[in-house]
Amino acid sequence: MAPPKQERAVQTREQILRAAAEVFDEYGYAGAGINKILQRAGVTAGALYFHFKNKQDLAVEVMNAQRTTIEPHVPSIGLQRLVDITLIWSHSLQADPMLRAGVRLTGEQATFGLSDATPYTVWAGSFEQCLEVARERGELREHVLPGELAEFLVGACTGMQEYAQVVSAREDLPRRTVAMWRVLLPGIATAEAAGRLVADQQRAAELWAAADASGRDGARTGNGT
Amino acid sequence: MAPPKQERAVQTREQILRAAAEVFDEYGYAGAGINKILQRAGVTAGALYFHFKNKQDLAVEVMNAQRTTIEPHVPSIGLQRLVDITLIWSHSLQADPMLRAGVRLTGEQATFGLSDATPYTVWAGSFEQCLEVARERGELREHVLPGELAEFLVGACTGMQEYAQVVSAREDLPRRTVAMWRVLLPGIATAEAAGRLVADQQRAAELWAAADASGRDGARTGNGT
Repeated sequence: MAPPKQERAVQTREQILRAAAEVFDEYGYAGAGINKILQRAGVTAGALYFHFKNKQDLAVEVMNAQRTTIEPHVPSIGLQRLVDITLIWSHSLQADPMLRAGVRLTGEQATFGLSDATPYTVWAGSFEQCLEVARERGELREHVLPGELAEFLVGACTGMQEYAQVVSAREDLPRRTVAMWRVLLPGIATAEAAGRLVADQQRAAELWAAADASGRDGARTGNGT
Repeated sequence: MAPPKQERAVQTREQILRAAAEVFDEYGYAGAGINKILQRAGVTAGALYFHFKNKQDLAVEVMNAQRTTIEPHVPSIGLQRLVDITLIWSHSLQADPMLRAGVRLTGEQATFGLSDATPYTVWAGSFEQCLEVARERGELREHVLPGELAEFLVGACTGMQEYAQVVSAREDLPRRTVAMWRVLLPGIATAEAAGRLVADQQRAAELWAAADASGRDGARTGNGT
């Protein structure tokens, strides 16, 4: 049985967004022509403009999809959840065009006349939630302010991946992410929590393998095959 | 007496670089035409191409001048020196076109086909020196690795200013920089050092006022007036 009309529309929208992400990731905003995106998505211009106003609208959607590429795959809570989000992210940024394009566009948005804080504030909100739970669970040292630490972490991760991009095409991002937690945890976690938390490269690789497998399953289901 | 020929050449080179920085800062790489730079510098194309190969060469020079805009103005040593560099930087990024253009170009370099790690590694080397001195002075907690912490800090500052740029045109960068040290210091400094260090907005404003005044004096001397 063919999927109902509404479901097909959702699939088409997803297909266009994914194609746009791939093209933005490869060519940047300026180099991503609408024709390239149409060709990659295998849809008509009519279909694209039914779902998106223009190229900038597509870019904003891709920028703001970052969180959804990671959070469904995080198994933990509290401070470990925050650590795990960054560990998965450190691998995902090498492999997932949607996340990679979102990050690239966020950094380059001034070059196409945009200044959208949402990609930053959405991550900061998500990190703050983890830290609020961590506080309730007694995992944070007393002086830590969840909102302030969350904002700092979003900035730190943003710059860390740019540095990693330039020196290693992000291959060393998992190592850098683990190093970040080695720097930060003694100052923010209670001794008890710090003793329990796992923030090493092995956990990063294992979490990523699980997220990647479930993401591929999801994509297969999403494509209706 | 007119300055000797070599001195004039140095002044012209400096004048072109400063004009280029202003134009890159305002228009980004793509929007910065050579003619705009010539007009701003008040020099001929011949003079520009005597000193610089092309626009990309100019951009690389501006990217790599960041450190020289700050370090001559830092009065302290060890961990306080590292803190002070970031405090002055948090103000200077709002006011100094040379630093602002350097940072903008570093972030946007992929859009003009460049992937130069020097702006990151030069800062990391400078930060690591401060941390090595801090270690000798007994200011660092034992688990801290100067090289690893220096790299993390460069990434963290890079992303922090991008976040600040989008939400406040960097007006809140001094506050964010002070917050960064509130997050970091308990984990990296010995209790004795942490008690001595000053990392607040008042110190940031005072250091910047002194650096700004001496920078303006330097610019006047440099222009031979």
